[in-house]
Amino acid sequence: MYEDISITQITVKDLRFPTSLQHDGSDAMHTNPDYSCAYVLLETNNNQKGYGLTFTLGKGTEVVTCCIKAMEGLIVGRKVKDIFEHFGNFWRTLTSDSQMRWIGPEKGVIHLATAAIINALWDLWARLEGKPVWKLLVDLPPEKLVSVIDFRYITDVITREEAIQMLKNREEGKANREKELLENGYPAYTTQVGWIGYSTDKVKSLCKEYLNKGFTAFKIKVGQNLEEDRKRCAMVRECIGDTNVLMVDANQVWDVNEAIEWMKNLAEFKPLWIEEPTSPDDILGHATIAKELKNYNIGVATGEMCCNRVMFKQLLQAKAIEYCQIDSARIGGINEILAVYLMAEKLKVKVCPHAGGIGLCEMVQHLQFWDFISLSGSKEGKYIEYVDQQHEHFKVPVVIQSAAYIPPLEPGYSVEIFPDTMRKHEFPNGEIWKNIRTS
Amino acid sequence: MYEDISITQITVKDLRFPTSLQHDGSDAMHTNPDYSCAYVLLETNNNQKGYGLTFTLGKGTEVVTCCIKAMEGLIVGRKVKDIFEHFGNFWRTLTSDSQMRWIGPEKGVIHLATAAIINALWDLWARLEGKPVWKLLVDLPPEKLVSVIDFRYITDVITREEAIQMLKNREEGKANREKELLENGYPAYTTQVGWIGYSTDKVKSLCKEYLNKGFTAFKIKVGQNLEEDRKRCAMVRECIGDTNVLMVDANQVWDVNEAIEWMKNLAEFKPLWIEEPTSPDDILGHATIAKELKNYNIGVATGEMCCNRVMFKQLLQAKAIEYCQIDSARIGGINEILAVYLMAEKLKVKVCPHAGGIGLCEMVQHLQFWDFISLSGSKEGKYIEYVDQQHEHFKVPVVIQSAAYIPPLEPGYSVEIFPDTMRKHEFPNGEIWKNIRTS
Repeated sequence: MYEDISITQITVKDLRFPTSLQHDGSDAMHTNPDYSCAYVLLETNNNQKGYGLTFTLGKGTEVVTCCIKAMEGLIVGRKVKDIFEHFGNFWRTLTSDSQMRWIGPEKGVIHLATAAIINALWDLWARLEGKPVWKLLVDLPPEKLVSVIDFRYITDVITREEAIQMLKNREEGKANREKELLENGYPAYTTQVGWIGYSTDKVKSLCKEYLNKGFTAFKIKVGQNLEEDRKRCAMVRECIGDTNVLMVDANQVWDVNEAIEWMKNLAEFKPLWIEEPTSPDDILGHATIAKELKNYNIGVATGEMCCNRVMFKQLLQAKAIEYCQIDSARIGGINEILAVYLMAEKLKVKVCPHAGGIGLCEMVQHLQFWDFISLSGSKEGKYIEYVDQQHEHFKVPVVIQSAAYIPPLEPGYSVEIFPDTMRKHEFPNGEIWKNIRTS
Repeated sequence: MYEDISITQITVKDLRFPTSLQHDGSDAMHTNPDYSCAYVLLETNNNQKGYGLTFTLGKGTEVVTCCIKAMEGLIVGRKVKDIFEHFGNFWRTLTSDSQMRWIGPEKGVIHLATAAIINALWDLWARLEGKPVWKLLVDLPPEKLVSVIDFRYITDVITREEAIQMLKNREEGKANREKELLENGYPAYTTQVGWIGYSTDKVKSLCKEYLNKGFTAFKIKVGQNLEEDRKRCAMVRECIGDTNVLMVDANQVWDVNEAIEWMKNLAEFKPLWIEEPTSPDDILGHATIAKELKNYNIGVATGEMCCNRVMFKQLLQAKAIEYCQIDSARIGGINEILAVYLMAEKLKVKVCPHAGGIGLCEMVQHLQFWDFISLSGSKEGKYIEYVDQQHEHFKVPVVIQSAAYIPPLEPGYSVEIFPDTMRKHEFPNGEIWKNIRTS
């Protein structure tokens, strides 16, 4: 297939949204984020397109676009057949360039750039197949699916053969699960109720609004002030009642012992998890926190800033997390994320994806749908994060019904942005930014 | 002091050297490096200058220079007094910008950029003081020295108070150690004898050459082919004899179990350490390897790609390394490196710095001199890496006598590059690169 199709061009855009003006997305560590993305458009000689992005917070997006341009030579001119038939090898050429890897390796800017490119390639592949990405993944035979993964550095936890066997073991019932998912969707939780910059009244009215929409799980930001956190947790718990789920998120503000002490003080509000209690790099620290907080029935969750599969491997090995929060645009795209799902399944850790930033809900839903149908076979106690923000810029926005993500049927990875949004939001010369500068 | 001095300008250059043409610097992972750097020049309103750099391998350097430019607003216009009197706080403003930290945090491109800027600030500070950086560090009172460190995320291993006490405990004998160091220097080992792209004859003749220069410790690259490695180790061991030291370096090519098996096969050649056996991010993996290889009297060394103090903390906590290879330009400059030295001293791990890349020997010697005089008080079983390459481009190049680094007395951090080198090596339009393109 695709014998004569090759990639002829890669275009990169720096798109920014002035979300800091309303404190949307604010937390204890990121007080004034402007939700943004480095956006990639791939074009082929048969006029097919592939769209991908990586999420950012404003300043620094130009560094990621610069990096994507630096990787152009590894993409343009390639036959898509050579990429998709040997996708694991291609992924390694992208992440292990003998000169470029020094500025990573496999972390930070260069891995965000890799994510945007790899996401665009999966979008392209799914469009060529005429399927949404989740369905493309579900339909790939186990051997083929596993062949997209680079197992370097993770064979001490999972091998290619084990991965294939795990998928084969779950083949029974796939059709039923797909049917059930299309009918009922996948549970979502909301982060919208408690950004750190929101007033008490705003939090309260948002809790009511999302309860009315059918949500049963609510996440709020903590970590700036313990007394404020206690008040806010009490207020949210009162609003949502005892049977609904509360999660709290500290966005990395604490040291290890501080995290333990602070959370002991919030235990009475029965949070399901504490998210990002400390540095995303501190595997042993998370393990210490998890061990202590187990006594208080609080799980530890992290992953949105976990930089690659090697770090996820260790979080799982060390029993440092009870909830594994993969992100669709920080590690090296679907190829690497599949490896994390497989390790999490083997080590019995629940995957509850991070989302909310631009395009993150749109993309990550595909992966969680695949996990349910093909790998874990269960939605029990799992959720996909949801934030109702900026979906209007996407041609195929997420659909939420009764607090559940409903699978899209359109081909691709759901991240194509309207041309009008691109014109207005391109930084620094789009209309939105020109107006802000002159107002 | 410095009441009215402020930083007026930051200039960034992409300097590259075509080292891949001779296979200099080649290893199992980086087969064709072009030694390069992102070079920073700070200027003040009193015409003082500060020079700093971060080392790179060619492609991708432009991404680091782009990132340094993106950070300009955090530096230019600042009073140097405000920076140096509250250097720990300033370091955090640089590394924790609410929008920019998303593209790290504290790792990869943005941390390399931070390193270059922080290195230039220390150069500036030392010039203002009229001292080499090592002497500036040695002369800072313990409280002042420790105040430059951001202890966020490391207080579970070391606190500010402990750090101050450790330095105070070592104050006795400082003057004697400084005198002794100025006379005898600090032991160096050579990596020059065994780049992976070098022929057997070249390795043999280089071993003889460095033996004649007085070297007693020799590092070679391994990891591409076990039989070749065995032949090369046997040959080098024969050349250097049983009493000299051999180190081997795999530059991250192995998985965990592969590293253990491979090194068992090289144990008979009695290497002091295996360097970078696997992913630089795999703390638990290094711990497993270290535990197994202890039975063979082989130590584990890593650090040149360890991305920040949180990762070093864990390598030390997990007993994953016997030799801690700090690098002067990958983590966030001297401020963060001092934290690593303090943790290593507390946890009794030897620091043997990585060097060899452009400017790395010039800078890192200062830190190891400080460690000997002010912190560990000992050179026992420790070395600084040395490669005799590209020193001619520096105004104050390292001085090696009888295989020892001799402390420089000139003010600064020894990384000022000659204007002529800058003109010729600037990428892509310097004379050297124009000639390569047209030849």
